[in-house]
Amino acid sequence: MYTAYDTICGGTMYTTLPPKGMRDFLPRDKALRDEVANKIRKAYASCGFTEVETSIVESIENLTGGDGGENQKLVFRILKRGEKLSNAESEDQLADLGLRFDFTLPLTRFYSNNRNELPNVFKSIQMGMVFRGERPQKGRYRSFVQCDVDVIGEASQLAEIEILNAASKALDSLGIGAYEIKISDRRFLTSLITQSGIAEEHVDSVCISLDKYDKIGRDGVLKELEGRGIAGGEAVLDKFIGIDLEGVKDICEEAYNNLRIIMGAFANTKVKLVFDPTLVRGMGYYTATIFEVFNPTYGLALGGGGRYDKMVGKISGTDAPAAGFSIGFERICDLLLEKGMVAAGPNKLAILVSEPSDYAKALEYQSRDDGFIKSIYQRKKKFGKQLANLEKSGYTHFVDMDNPDAIKLVKNE
Amino acid sequence: MYTAYDTICGGTMYTTLPPKGMRDFLPRDKALRDEVANKIRKAYASCGFTEVETSIVESIENLTGGDGGENQKLVFRILKRGEKLSNAESEDQLADLGLRFDFTLPLTRFYSNNRNELPNVFKSIQMGMVFRGERPQKGRYRSFVQCDVDVIGEASQLAEIEILNAASKALDSLGIGAYEIKISDRRFLTSLITQSGIAEEHVDSVCISLDKYDKIGRDGVLKELEGRGIAGGEAVLDKFIGIDLEGVKDICEEAYNNLRIIMGAFANTKVKLVFDPTLVRGMGYYTATIFEVFNPTYGLALGGGGRYDKMVGKISGTDAPAAGFSIGFERICDLLLEKGMVAAGPNKLAILVSEPSDYAKALEYQSRDDGFIKSIYQRKKKFGKQLANLEKSGYTHFVDMDNPDAIKLVKNE
Repeated sequence: MYTAYDTICGGTMYTTLPPKGMRDFLPRDKALRDEVANKIRKAYASCGFTEVETSIVESIENLTGGDGGENQKLVFRILKRGEKLSNAESEDQLADLGLRFDFTLPLTRFYSNNRNELPNVFKSIQMGMVFRGERPQKGRYRSFVQCDVDVIGEASQLAEIEILNAASKALDSLGIGAYEIKISDRRFLTSLITQSGIAEEHVDSVCISLDKYDKIGRDGVLKELEGRGIAGGEAVLDKFIGIDLEGVKDICEEAYNNLRIIMGAFANTKVKLVFDPTLVRGMGYYTATIFEVFNPTYGLALGGGGRYDKMVGKISGTDAPAAGFSIGFERICDLLLEKGMVAAGPNKLAILVSEPSDYAKALEYQSRDDGFIKSIYQRKKKFGKQLANLEKSGYTHFVDMDNPDAIKLVKNE
Repeated sequence: MYTAYDTICGGTMYTTLPPKGMRDFLPRDKALRDEVANKIRKAYASCGFTEVETSIVESIENLTGGDGGENQKLVFRILKRGEKLSNAESEDQLADLGLRFDFTLPLTRFYSNNRNELPNVFKSIQMGMVFRGERPQKGRYRSFVQCDVDVIGEASQLAEIEILNAASKALDSLGIGAYEIKISDRRFLTSLITQSGIAEEHVDSVCISLDKYDKIGRDGVLKELEGRGIAGGEAVLDKFIGIDLEGVKDICEEAYNNLRIIMGAFANTKVKLVFDPTLVRGMGYYTATIFEVFNPTYGLALGGGGRYDKMVGKISGTDAPAAGFSIGFERICDLLLEKGMVAAGPNKLAILVSEPSDYAKALEYQSRDDGFIKSIYQRKKKFGKQLANLEKSGYTHFVDMDNPDAIKLVKNE
């Protein structure tokens, strides 16, 4: 299909658009995104987390072998190269690499590989692009930034506490208004389901339906379970809906104690932790605490995470307790852009030159340390239009090398 | 092949290594890389360049159709998904996307697509990962960071001058010692070759051999040319070697004037521009000025660039003059790491807790604004070992929640 964005040149069809579901960022959007990222980074770092970087590309076995749930169906696979490709005998053998779809698998791989170089309790920040071949739609992209904090090596609630503390500091720094953090424990749901007489093998399946309770309601959940031949849904729902934290005690005492300790630590802080029995969280790798940040003003989840004590063992053969949180970076940037937020810019001055003999003078002027960000431009004949364009690009002042002592305002009111 | 880094779990073979030629970065390396990147970013921005971000993934046609020279053979290609893949009839049809191998093609695509939103003279910064399926070797990776500045829309030498100014400010900020910038003009080489009686179609081929003059010498160059059936190499070499800038005047006056103006602008600065007739630069898209930063202490090129006035027209159908520079980020980081450079770290304090009832107190302490980066840790029974580990992780102080008023030194001398 040939569109207005395509050009045919020398037999090659170029497109000027980024690939479907992926994006470029103009200077003003990039500046806002960097400001958001740096605020998050700074908040995370203020809680003692240190940043690491893992490869954007992972082996295809790592990406498709694990607990990534739906995401591993969405992997962008990279073709083998050269001889290796010619030797591929089936579609599955065409790819040896793929693009990461989140940071959890790369982090556990990284931790397993560098265990001896890392502290016993390793508190990591990861920020960068991840890729999923989803159907693109408003607010959902095929490449997007994730900003994660994780604690590996801490079995106690300190892991969750430090993560929730860092997450709330990051959210507080962004100016996106009040939020609450919904919290629950996977073990509570598992106990509740199995105690209702449903076989353990169906727990994940029941959880998937419960996760939709807000959207499809009681009848919808029951219908889904019946459709899969799972009886006992009524009993689960009777216990599940409206249960408070004290009610958890009889169903799963370890979940109750876990949540009590975490929520207790934050009781006298501004961080609002709310037990939510309907919280499920999609990923199969969570083993205990799960949480999700909810912004009631926008009715949006702005991040989530939980404890995943079995991932490191799966990839390395040696278990390590772990918990993590991922902030909804793209959603937050979209929100801030909709609110018209603009990153704070520098003071900008244009140095105007008329001929090559001005260049040396302009370079000297450019290097002065006067608080201005300075660019050198050719002075245009249509000077009024040039000033209007400079203003549009954020310049407040200019100086002409014909008269370098007179700094003038771009907008002469 | 099963190695010590592989684990078999549930039938899946995981590896804990990043893919061949790609890397993860530990906290100390990541901190140094970020420090270097931020210094470069700050220097570029101080010269009025603004950062943009383009998609890591590009359409395969864009990546393999153009002037990327050797690099386009090294593209990591991404498999089509779903039905599109089943319909592929040949190897060439298996991929619809690929990973970018540099920033020049993405930038010209971006500029063509966003021309109306961008200033007439667009001064961009791009920093991020690019990918090439090269044979990995010391200092050469399959994924690596590039840090580019480009000026699009400026036909005069101001483009080169602003780029060289920004590049030198970046290099000066990095503590890598003295360097010189070799400069030449593609048109000089073209004129010299055609004036020696060699057909225009052989110019690129002769340039490729001349580029190796430093390594293979006069005889090597002549042998290569003879091998390709190109006569007249003697005449080229006779003019080429030892020619000074004044000598360029007779061969190509526009190249001479161009270089005179650029070098003249920097004559009274600390930036050392040296005309080098043997400079070729690999990429086929350069049309006039070419330059390369050379560090004589290490005998290394630390970046390079030039003018490429035809790229934008090729992708969009409308020409725009352009010039750019790319800094050798990985080479510089490798150099600094070898020199034992470590990024400046924060003051770190460990908050030690003994039981859950300490958690709330620890959170309150953590939130104090006292100039320390603070982490909360369980107090270990082997306390001496714990202090040693804290010191290894960069902690200078700790405080025990049993006695929160006493900040103590981790290292008690």
